[in-house]
Amino acid sequence: MSALPVGATIGIMGGGQLGRMLALAAAPLGFRCHIYCPDPESPAFDVAAEASVAPYDDAQALARFAAAVEVITFEFENVPVAPLRPHAALCRPGLAVLEAAQDRLAEKEHLSRYAPVAPHAAIDGPDDIAPAMARLSPEGGPFILKTRRFGYDGKGQAAVDPTDPAAAWHAIGAAPAILEQRIALAAEFSTIIARAEDGEAVIYEPARNRHEGGILRTSTVPGDIAPAARASAEAATRAFADALQVVGVVAVEWFLTQDGGVVANEMAPRVHNSGHWTMDGAATSQFENHIRAIAHWPLGRPERTAPTTMTNIIGEDGSRWRPALGESGVRLHLYGKREARPGRKMGHVNRIGD
Amino acid sequence: MSALPVGATIGIMGGGQLGRMLALAAAPLGFRCHIYCPDPESPAFDVAAEASVAPYDDAQALARFAAAVEVITFEFENVPVAPLRPHAALCRPGLAVLEAAQDRLAEKEHLSRYAPVAPHAAIDGPDDIAPAMARLSPEGGPFILKTRRFGYDGKGQAAVDPTDPAAAWHAIGAAPAILEQRIALAAEFSTIIARAEDGEAVIYEPARNRHEGGILRTSTVPGDIAPAARASAEAATRAFADALQVVGVVAVEWFLTQDGGVVANEMAPRVHNSGHWTMDGAATSQFENHIRAIAHWPLGRPERTAPTTMTNIIGEDGSRWRPALGESGVRLHLYGKREARPGRKMGHVNRIGD
Repeated sequence: MSALPVGATIGIMGGGQLGRMLALAAAPLGFRCHIYCPDPESPAFDVAAEASVAPYDDAQALARFAAAVEVITFEFENVPVAPLRPHAALCRPGLAVLEAAQDRLAEKEHLSRYAPVAPHAAIDGPDDIAPAMARLSPEGGPFILKTRRFGYDGKGQAAVDPTDPAAAWHAIGAAPAILEQRIALAAEFSTIIARAEDGEAVIYEPARNRHEGGILRTSTVPGDIAPAARASAEAATRAFADALQVVGVVAVEWFLTQDGGVVANEMAPRVHNSGHWTMDGAATSQFENHIRAIAHWPLGRPERTAPTTMTNIIGEDGSRWRPALGESGVRLHLYGKREARPGRKMGHVNRIGD
Repeated sequence: MSALPVGATIGIMGGGQLGRMLALAAAPLGFRCHIYCPDPESPAFDVAAEASVAPYDDAQALARFAAAVEVITFEFENVPVAPLRPHAALCRPGLAVLEAAQDRLAEKEHLSRYAPVAPHAAIDGPDDIAPAMARLSPEGGPFILKTRRFGYDGKGQAAVDPTDPAAAWHAIGAAPAILEQRIALAAEFSTIIARAEDGEAVIYEPARNRHEGGILRTSTVPGDIAPAARASAEAATRAFADALQVVGVVAVEWFLTQDGGVVANEMAPRVHNSGHWTMDGAATSQFENHIRAIAHWPLGRPERTAPTTMTNIIGEDGSRWRPALGESGVRLHLYGKREARPGRKMGHVNRIGD
């Protein structure tokens, strides 16, 4: 496919912070952005040329949107796929990748072709849990139950109480689920790759991630990941992106086990919170490389330019960071959300330098 | 005055590339932007939350705009001042600074209090030119005639033919003018300062500028400006910004004379083309520091982070830069203008690193 011309309009499904930062990265490349989001107060609207406010399954609104843009991309993977089928030729990445990412079981099975994954089983009702636990780990848990669909930031997950497995089933909303054995982990990290349609790809240095309450709190590079673990994770990430023929950015989250091995936990076929450090710490940000990839432009260099720690601003407005802005190496990225709510990602700060 | 809160709306007069890059810099700080510009195809509209399309002297439209924003700033100095007087309290920098910058004679007189300026004289008609030439330089020119108002990018200027001085008068449109003796110059450079309301200021390393056909072509840092010349220029820039009580960014363009002295040429109370290198080569860009200054937020560090050369993309669309984007250290900034015309600034490229 030929390169998207300067002045073309990129359609972005989703109007949150990821759509907003994609739009901010697209502008200097000369692209206009059209954001599609059901929420009329979407923060991405404030930095984009056009907005469509409509449900994700509104066929007519989607048809108008598709007619107004040259390519459609995604800030999140949980967009309903069926209404997009008439416009599949415009979608980058393709709809198959989105589908793989929408179901934790399918995701795990894709990942398991390229890397170890946690022992897991499909759960279709509360009575499935106890037998699955016995089968996966005869000596016992711990186990976690996750909804197969629409989970993020620790939502749709519950620890399993071995004396009352059905409680976890009800806690996650009594929906089709996946049971996973918890891994005894030494650390968490992520790999982020940007892949072009012709298979060219660049991979960012892995960031070490720290979560609190199921929400990413910090990502740090260098991540101090041992070379063997890093090499395994990077090779699997490349193979996985190739196999799904991804166009754009894919993130894979990893567990580093206590014996130095790696276990693939989740993947997201999009820009990812654990890659926000690239905005100030890499030669090209993940957002710009996603835009370049879907536009069929040359990918930018991924090298880290400085040690960087990204810290999420969660549930509080960004004002308290104002005094820190006079310091060297502190870069603020607020998302323009009107209301700070507990657990809501309001922005992030990158600290660069030692 | 207290700091502008996160979520506040900044009004920007002018919808060209400078307004666009101000809006792109305001977003990560959590501000919304409202662009006021008579041109319905203004490139800044594509990255801003709100737009007003109206003439600069439309009192009603300005009143609506002023009611919708918390502060008004400017991408260019040639905004009519009288219609803004009712809203003067919102304007940063203040209207006095704009007025000083709108008239080349007033500008020269302000600059001359702090630095040498070229010998010059006011010209109110074609018959004024010959006597002024004789008075300024009995041994002869060369001289240049410039309109006192609305000049930019070499427009409104003409070299004076000593045998037909009136020709220059007609060439610039027979308008009130200023006659300047041309300086035999070794180089051109510029100083860019960001000043807060309380007088705190940060100054960027001077960039060496190269013009072609009256239009800036490249700016380079380090600019290889001798320490004494740099110190004089920086001290004058600080004193000038203090005297006019500027809030925001001011640029001063300088001639480096063949004997190593400095002559102040022009000033602009706004972000400036010769400061675009700061987007990729400084700890904080001029755009972000302008927004911080007018928002009464702490100014960011101005240090250069890498040797950088900014090259303007003039009269051609940005496509031809696409192949260069795979190289290390090449950063593209296109302005989203729909039509490439000769002499029109379409974007710029920053090359960082040696």
